[in-house]
Amino acid sequence: MSILTSQEFTRRIEAAREVVRQNNLDAVLVFSTECEPAAVRYFSDYWPSFETAAVLIPAEGEPALIIGPESLTYASSRSKISRIIQLMDFRESSQPDYPGSTLPKWTDVVAQYKLKKIGLCGWYLFPYVMMMELVKAMGCIDRVIPADSMIRPIFMKKSALEVECLKAAAKASEAGFKAILENIKPGMTESELCGIATAAMTAAGAEATGYPVWCCSGPNSDQAISRPTMRKIQCGEIVHFSIGAKVEGYSASIGRPVVLGHCPDEIRKFLQVGLDAANMTFDVMRAGVKSGDAALKVHDFIRAQGYGDAILYGPAHGCGQMECEYPFLETSSEYMLEADMTFMQDMFLHRNGMGFRWEDGLLVKASGPAEMLSSYGRQINIL
Amino acid sequence: MSILTSQEFTRRIEAAREVVRQNNLDAVLVFSTECEPAAVRYFSDYWPSFETAAVLIPAEGEPALIIGPESLTYASSRSKISRIIQLMDFRESSQPDYPGSTLPKWTDVVAQYKLKKIGLCGWYLFPYVMMMELVKAMGCIDRVIPADSMIRPIFMKKSALEVECLKAAAKASEAGFKAILENIKPGMTESELCGIATAAMTAAGAEATGYPVWCCSGPNSDQAISRPTMRKIQCGEIVHFSIGAKVEGYSASIGRPVVLGHCPDEIRKFLQVGLDAANMTFDVMRAGVKSGDAALKVHDFIRAQGYGDAILYGPAHGCGQMECEYPFLETSSEYMLEADMTFMQDMFLHRNGMGFRWEDGLLVKASGPAEMLSSYGRQINIL
Repeated sequence: MSILTSQEFTRRIEAAREVVRQNNLDAVLVFSTECEPAAVRYFSDYWPSFETAAVLIPAEGEPALIIGPESLTYASSRSKISRIIQLMDFRESSQPDYPGSTLPKWTDVVAQYKLKKIGLCGWYLFPYVMMMELVKAMGCIDRVIPADSMIRPIFMKKSALEVECLKAAAKASEAGFKAILENIKPGMTESELCGIATAAMTAAGAEATGYPVWCCSGPNSDQAISRPTMRKIQCGEIVHFSIGAKVEGYSASIGRPVVLGHCPDEIRKFLQVGLDAANMTFDVMRAGVKSGDAALKVHDFIRAQGYGDAILYGPAHGCGQMECEYPFLETSSEYMLEADMTFMQDMFLHRNGMGFRWEDGLLVKASGPAEMLSSYGRQINIL
Repeated sequence: MSILTSQEFTRRIEAAREVVRQNNLDAVLVFSTECEPAAVRYFSDYWPSFETAAVLIPAEGEPALIIGPESLTYASSRSKISRIIQLMDFRESSQPDYPGSTLPKWTDVVAQYKLKKIGLCGWYLFPYVMMMELVKAMGCIDRVIPADSMIRPIFMKKSALEVECLKAAAKASEAGFKAILENIKPGMTESELCGIATAAMTAAGAEATGYPVWCCSGPNSDQAISRPTMRKIQCGEIVHFSIGAKVEGYSASIGRPVVLGHCPDEIRKFLQVGLDAANMTFDVMRAGVKSGDAALKVHDFIRAQGYGDAILYGPAHGCGQMECEYPFLETSSEYMLEADMTFMQDMFLHRNGMGFRWEDGLLVKASGPAEMLSSYGRQINIL
């Protein structure tokens, strides 16, 4: 039934072990939260909710999934890592009491695994309070070092199965946008439209959304990151959608602007420049090209059209278990593009209080232009 | 249109200022994330996505909303606090570059507000890396102290407008469960059912879900915290739903078990004990009663029925902007129940690999039993 195999998870753990050994560490601790669940899911298939979670991958010996006091039955049903440790530090941030609880402590974990030096992934997420407890158990702060950049090379090129998950997610996202095109009417609220897209995606095989989906209309269209509101959409304004489905942990998103009724020429031209720049991104992202050079070509094109002031970032960012993950494709990027890297082509432009996003998944190929993971409705949609 | 007024937000800021002054602090810094957005939303109505956010409330002078590099247009459209500061530390955890950015730093904020000692809310969420930057700017770690317990009394009793938001959320959650009862069929996936509930809630006025809703069927019904899977639901097993809508930031949830087709006597009896205990919770939670005593009465009842081993926690937890917030109602709880406190009555029982949740919002009244915020489908549902 599922796309990802146990071998895939074993391979990932082994790759992380190799990084641990190469860096003379005893283990790597991979930390995730409800809204940033990617890294823990990558290694364990477990996906935290309310509580936080981590995967401990030692140089030798059995890895462990670390969870909070309430997630045991949930984690047991999901985790590809059979050893599960519960620590109070991983409970909800509202800090329930759990009277009578006798869970182990960080000192027990450190002793059991004989940890003298560990790498920490999720460095920018890891809570201060938890770090203090971990450091107390480890003896001193120098024994916990940032490890995101060590582990990243494992994530950066996708396996065939990972690409399959992304394609399935992209397909479900297309179903979400199809439901929008079929149901959208003036007077509907942004939130209502997001609900329609969500139901269509889960009916089409998505396990969930990849992030809280959004719809931005009229004055709200100016927002690059957003959430839907109770605003009722109207004719003659930009209504744009960021809709992303998740399949087996992988998120591939669709970004589309829509105009109901008459579309003023100014808006039509603006949307078209964005779409042309978005299409160009697939052409310039080729294996062997320096990432920053590819980004510069796209931004140069937008500037040549007279829309340089409308650029906010981009024109692409890594995708996989996180809809937006390292590496970013920015004009300052130095890395080389390689086959099997996956991105979201993400063209957000805004000026004069209005904006829109064109977005689709992108797979860098060994030769030629990048492959598009979704294309449904990738056109000027005036309804 | 909206329930909450500007005066409501002004009152909250003033209440926090009073706490700041009483504790001889220069300010309180209230931190939130995408999955724990409650505290920032409480004071600003802004609701972070992807990036993190904070509200800085000084003893004197203008409060500020602090956000990351990509959220300015989004935050400006939402925030009741007009002063907005962008710091790079609040960017996405995947750490985009933002070439050429010239955002201010913590040292600028500390200098501008003349901060010598501050309280920090969201103590258990606050990232280690950000704490290091903040402490460097403040001069030493003693100048940043935990402030959740200082600020909590402001949240703990709800205003009439807050109760109105919770009732609107409860009503939308009822619409979500109604859509489940009308559409559920054997063979549907857990995720698909969650999508149906989500669409019904946003169509009924919810701005979003209060948390990622879940459906647990058969062997998954054992899970207290969960996420929906691609499992197809079947006849003769427990299928339980945790469905929560959000209205103006307030989350009130519904927990309901459902059985399709024949319901074995053992399951029916188990569900009934849970429902009786859930109903009893509304009766025992009265103003002037010690919280732990109320919890004990409910747990004693369950034990007397022979189901003591099925208890995991509870039988209630605070609710408001977080679907699950402080205070918890546990047998160890010491605080006194007071009028205008709001809870989720949350009865989760599990044994022998199966479980369920009965859950509805609860408002403690000045006298008599607590008021139920939702009741739709609060019965043994065998379809």
